Amino acid sequence: MTEVAAGPELGAAEVELINMANQVRHAMHEATSCLIVPNLTKAESVIETDVIVDEIANKLDRLGVELAATNSGDVAAIRQLLSQLRIASSLERMGDLAAHIAKAARRRYPDSAIPAELVPTFERMGSVADSVMALTLSALKRHDSSLWTEIHETDDQMDALHREMFRVVLAPGWEYGMESAIDVTLLSRYFERYADHAVSIMRRMVHMITGEPYANTESEG
Amino acid sequence: MTEVAAGPELGAAEVELINMANQVRHAMHEATSCLIVPNLTKAESVIETDVIVDEIANKLDRLGVELAATNSGDVAAIRQLLSQLRIASSLERMGDLAAHIAKAARRRYPDSAIPAELVPTFERMGSVADSVMALTLSALKRHDSSLWTEIHETDDQMDALHREMFRVVLAPGWEYGMESAIDVTLLSRYFERYADHAVSIMRRMVHMITGEPYANTESEG
Repeated sequence: MTEVAAGPELGAAEVELINMANQVRHAMHEATSCLIVPNLTKAESVIETDVIVDEIANKLDRLGVELAATNSGDVAAIRQLLSQLRIASSLERMGDLAAHIAKAARRRYPDSAIPAELVPTFERMGSVADSVMALTLSALKRHDSSLWTEIHETDDQMDALHREMFRVVLAPGWEYGMESAIDVTLLSRYFERYADHAVSIMRRMVHMITGEPYANTESEG
Repeated sequence: MTEVAAGPELGAAEVELINMANQVRHAMHEATSCLIVPNLTKAESVIETDVIVDEIANKLDRLGVELAATNSGDVAAIRQLLSQLRIASSLERMGDLAAHIAKAARRRYPDSAIPAELVPTFERMGSVADSVMALTLSALKRHDSSLWTEIHETDDQMDALHREMFRVVLAPGWEYGMESAIDVTLLSRYFERYADHAVSIMRRMVHMITGEPYANTESEG
């Protein structure tokens, strides 16, 4: 575990990031649960949470300008701050994805947005999404870049579930029609992107902690 | 048209952004053309361009840290710089989307990744993608926030094409099977996201030029 001492001002950005990550984690949990058991109130609540997440992101943007202006000359502090702003972008986008899932649930209510056959797959996607955010939160709270491998492995699990979804939809036995196939394709893509963003956040964390170049790889979808 | 005088150092970031936007525009043009007329060499070339785009993004990241550290206390300069880094993120993501489209073309080669019936729709998507990037480039080059409405209207055209794709796939006459339906759903989603990113860049431009708060709305997919 690598520790980086954060100045009190930069700590303010960090508190907001952790707040954002907790909100998004809860939103994704609730959004998944609406896919499994249709619930209009819960879906609406997730969609409303996204507004709160966006507000925190905007607040962080303003804070970022102030902090960059006051911490100038301190290259390490600036690098940390710019990484935090990028992490905020990813978290904001993850909040959007949770809202997309909730909107799909709302659109099909009182029906389910996913056929019974895919409930186990999406349950596992929800569980993997929760794990990847739990790891992200740990990394954020502990300034810990050692979770890199674990986050990657969790992302691989999500990719495997995404492929499993394709196999089910493309199997000759698929009897839920084209509209449902399109729904689950996009829903699965949202989960997959959610995990990709966690990988991207982790890459920023590593850059922030170690100063190693931010490596943008092809692994993200 | 609002003019903002950029310092020479900030000008360096701007030159890279315009370079990036030009690369991505070309990549998207070529990727679309591979959907219409399968071409393996061209698809590979788009995928390689994405590596160049990512390298410029990484270069901008490093430049950003230096610039933020040297533009001490200058809140307007810092705001401009942070906006530029966010714009670079969007451009980098747009490059990914062009690469995704090229990869789909490569995966189905020598077949076409889209059925003949949807060629006109994807041709128009390609054309709208090109328009939206042409507008983005104008806004970037001229520091012009007046293109806001035009970029939004172009994004609306893309959304309409995305809906048109769904109508075609869901019509009883769809005879290209499930795999093709999933392909075109994801391809269309990539085009839609591409235009969303242009809207997001424009919003950052407005923020940068006018200092008005960055408004994150629900319009993005």
